[in-house]
Amino acid sequence: MHVLVIGAAGMVGRKLVARIAADGAVGGRPVTKLSLMDVIAPQLPEGMAGEAWAADISAGGAADRMIAGRPELIFHLAAIVSGEAEADFDKGYRINLDGTRLLFEEIRQESLRAAGEGAEYKPRVVFTSSIAVFGAPFPDAIGDEFFTTPLTSYGTQKAIGELLLADYSRRGFFDGVGIRLPTICIRPGLPNKAASGFFSSILREPLAGKEAVLPVPDTVMHWHASPRAAVGFLLHAATLDTEPLGARRNLTMPGLAATVAEQIEALRRVAGDKAVALIRREPDETIMRIVAGWPRRFDAKRAESLGFQAEKSFDEIIRVHVEDELMGKVP
Amino acid sequence: MHVLVIGAAGMVGRKLVARIAADGAVGGRPVTKLSLMDVIAPQLPEGMAGEAWAADISAGGAADRMIAGRPELIFHLAAIVSGEAEADFDKGYRINLDGTRLLFEEIRQESLRAAGEGAEYKPRVVFTSSIAVFGAPFPDAIGDEFFTTPLTSYGTQKAIGELLLADYSRRGFFDGVGIRLPTICIRPGLPNKAASGFFSSILREPLAGKEAVLPVPDTVMHWHASPRAAVGFLLHAATLDTEPLGARRNLTMPGLAATVAEQIEALRRVAGDKAVALIRREPDETIMRIVAGWPRRFDAKRAESLGFQAEKSFDEIIRVHVEDELMGKVP
Repeated sequence: MHVLVIGAAGMVGRKLVARIAADGAVGGRPVTKLSLMDVIAPQLPEGMAGEAWAADISAGGAADRMIAGRPELIFHLAAIVSGEAEADFDKGYRINLDGTRLLFEEIRQESLRAAGEGAEYKPRVVFTSSIAVFGAPFPDAIGDEFFTTPLTSYGTQKAIGELLLADYSRRGFFDGVGIRLPTICIRPGLPNKAASGFFSSILREPLAGKEAVLPVPDTVMHWHASPRAAVGFLLHAATLDTEPLGARRNLTMPGLAATVAEQIEALRRVAGDKAVALIRREPDETIMRIVAGWPRRFDAKRAESLGFQAEKSFDEIIRVHVEDELMGKVP
Repeated sequence: MHVLVIGAAGMVGRKLVARIAADGAVGGRPVTKLSLMDVIAPQLPEGMAGEAWAADISAGGAADRMIAGRPELIFHLAAIVSGEAEADFDKGYRINLDGTRLLFEEIRQESLRAAGEGAEYKPRVVFTSSIAVFGAPFPDAIGDEFFTTPLTSYGTQKAIGELLLADYSRRGFFDGVGIRLPTICIRPGLPNKAASGFFSSILREPLAGKEAVLPVPDTVMHWHASPRAAVGFLLHAATLDTEPLGARRNLTMPGLAATVAEQIEALRRVAGDKAVALIRREPDETIMRIVAGWPRRFDAKRAESLGFQAEKSFDEIIRVHVEDELMGKVP
């Protein structure tokens, strides 16, 4: 099977590629070719056949190069993140909306060309959406039929991508599954300026013996899943029987609703009081206001019934980080 | 006030323009200029200052010409209808999605230019959406927070237009209101091939002494409002205080849920048994299947609380038709 990963140099993209390379297969089907694209050149794992290149998804010819080899499985993870899409209106729409549409349209054109040759081209397309498609006010737990009223341009672009994915799938041009990822926790790497950054840094930094800043009260609740769970969602979406989805191709992924206090208590259980002591409380009105508009909890029945699985406790989320990023060692 | 009507030659567009010309004002503000655009040249009402021209909304320069005069109130009614957007994928996306986005983007550019001059340009934009943004299966009555999972490309394009309208409004480029029209009944004019055509023709044709074909059982329920109510929705959306809408700019309009049997009984009360006798039952499996995927009833609380009003009975819908199209005469 020929697999294309768009956005392969990002955090989730790299983990997905590493997992595919380690397994050598997706859903039991051997991966014979891996095509990796991102705005900065991704790394093709050693021993895998394929190619890796850098391109702007919205540039002329970019979609053509990605689809010309008729990949049977396409992961579309490329996006300008929330903060940047809000700061740069044009760039967000160009990459997140036009880039996605150009990709979908190129697949459609390729499927029409294949039909003209008496062949069939109808790849599985896994599109990473986000809980940012939802906007406050919310019910206590957001159900699978709740409407999408995003409060950011990023969320708007993802919601539009979902609609396009569903329509192109309904028309038979490809077989799409959209997955709305929870906030990924614990994000590895350096602290960043994302408003959501503290959900990871209050755990990741103390686990590395460093100080972290907590800008919101302990009572703030949010929806989380680990990077490992995110890769699991992607691979499950890649192999899922799409028949039961019907025309409703976009799914809120399961996750764990936890307060900051629950995160901190899990940290204490895993790494002790000395780790918790490294969290410095520094209330930030701006971040509090932004976070107040975010979803707290979902009732992701549909995805669960389709076999998607996330962590059941924050201890588990922390253990995944310790295993995958810290070689099993708690300081 | 300078008013722009895009799609001014269509059925609802013509009625809206006639009403504005008759009133000479919208919401009490005198209309000093009327700009009318459609793919076929609309008619500028006698005595109104302004201009009317034909253009393709998706063509280069079309949005520029519409917005250059900085209209303060913009009605966007232009669209490829459901059946054609399904038959011609490219045309549907070009007119319904690209055309709408080019318009919104031109308004944004004009608002940025105005800001550069120390002025403000932030028009009210009234966007006609449709209950086609919803797709079966449905709850018994569809609430204001039900998700949009369209089952047609037309519905997809309208749902995307709604998302863009909300985001451009949230960012302050214009002040948008999206209104999801019920099925308009009784549509004047000749019978057409729209799958929904029978809802009108089983009343309109007998009221004109002609035979009509009913392709579905009497038990089919659907969501209706008159052309006069549609014009009322548009004018109310044009003058509404948008503050209470917040970021949720798209509203399901009120309407009347009625079965075909209820439509027929209303016809009997208004025009007698001889009119009802002109309805010929000719079941059509294809139309039955299409109609089965359509919404039956909404609970349009939000729009009602904002003052939008539709007819309360089918007798009233028929009387509106008799008054507005038949000069008050029932055969």
